[in-house]
Amino acid sequence: MSQIKRAYGQNLLQLLASPENAEALSQLSERRYKKGHIMFWPHDKEDLVLIVKQGKVRVYLGLEGKELSLSILGPGDVYTSHSRAYVAAMEDTVVYLCPVYKFYTLTTKSLSLSLSLFMALGKLLSGSIALVENLYFYDIDKRVAAYFYEQALVHGEPSAGGLLVDVGLTVDKIATIVGSSRQTVSSLISGMEKDGILKKVARGEYLILNMDELKYLAHPCPD
Amino acid sequence: MSQIKRAYGQNLLQLLASPENAEALSQLSERRYKKGHIMFWPHDKEDLVLIVKQGKVRVYLGLEGKELSLSILGPGDVYTSHSRAYVAAMEDTVVYLCPVYKFYTLTTKSLSLSLSLFMALGKLLSGSIALVENLYFYDIDKRVAAYFYEQALVHGEPSAGGLLVDVGLTVDKIATIVGSSRQTVSSLISGMEKDGILKKVARGEYLILNMDELKYLAHPCPD
Repeated sequence: MSQIKRAYGQNLLQLLASPENAEALSQLSERRYKKGHIMFWPHDKEDLVLIVKQGKVRVYLGLEGKELSLSILGPGDVYTSHSRAYVAAMEDTVVYLCPVYKFYTLTTKSLSLSLSLFMALGKLLSGSIALVENLYFYDIDKRVAAYFYEQALVHGEPSAGGLLVDVGLTVDKIATIVGSSRQTVSSLISGMEKDGILKKVARGEYLILNMDELKYLAHPCPD
Repeated sequence: MSQIKRAYGQNLLQLLASPENAEALSQLSERRYKKGHIMFWPHDKEDLVLIVKQGKVRVYLGLEGKELSLSILGPGDVYTSHSRAYVAAMEDTVVYLCPVYKFYTLTTKSLSLSLSLFMALGKLLSGSIALVENLYFYDIDKRVAAYFYEQALVHGEPSAGGLLVDVGLTVDKIATIVGSSRQTVSSLISGMEKDGILKKVARGEYLILNMDELKYLAHPCPD
């Protein structure tokens, strides 16, 4: 079981780099995409697994000019070609590609790879259920506050006056994550700036001045 | 690879019944629940896999009296205890339960079980992405039409005058699937009855009189 234990807390990329998975790694093709390139389109016929090696990838739904982001993937994250979503490079990106069936066969030879793939699928599933919950039960002001609160919890760095968070996304892209327009999100951010809750310090960078208030905006009910 | 091939098209229940998985089956506990019983609550501390043996199970999100169904599970379907969702018996139900970690270990000894679990997770994931898409991009009249259209495609039985579909759900429950109120769904169904598109013939049973029109209501744009 030591292979399984080691797999906890490691993403697929780290596992593929270990000598025991050298054969699996040799079976994957590496591809580079320029920023903005759409790698997969909805209902792509090819059935491929994608593992991000370098860069940042956005998975999103789109209809008639309206977009909703399902996931922002970084190194070690996984997705497939065969879904309802667009998959696009947000910056210059390098990925590993492999037909789903072949990749599955590779994971059956390695407990750690197989567990890591399960965990990646589980993460995608819980992320999409969280998105359903947010869209259906919460208003947009709560969704925007919750977005910044969660980013600050995970990525916040203590700094003079508060927590510095580099969300690395324009307001436009944040709007596709919380399911609203750029205008609405922009005016909600301005509102939080006026209330002294946060401050935009650079493109994609925010200083959270009052985490308690931000948390309260995001989750007004104690529980 | 014959184990893998055999796993396609078979659900976990069928695989567990085969002699090669007798040991795995012996490790699962069987439990019975009465209709209406809530088996798992959101963020349950226990981390269990559930496989439906008999009956029908609803997975749903709930907040302040509002509910949204994520999935209706039948024999062979899988879910876990550790999610944001409620899991409840819609009728008298028998399930297999097993701690997630133990179940994962069992699947590593059987290619067919492991593949079947992957496919079950993939199905849950694509179902929840479809739900996000429907809720975000489509209005309620399209979502109700799409619900009946998809049910008719999958479960419709040719009958005098049309396709007979036993959705097996009250209007109340259909409303939690399409994300609306009973009143709204009820009036949309009445509208379709007036337009000669479908007819309610019994509780949970509908006769689809005009599939073309129903399809057009659900997906008005040719694609």
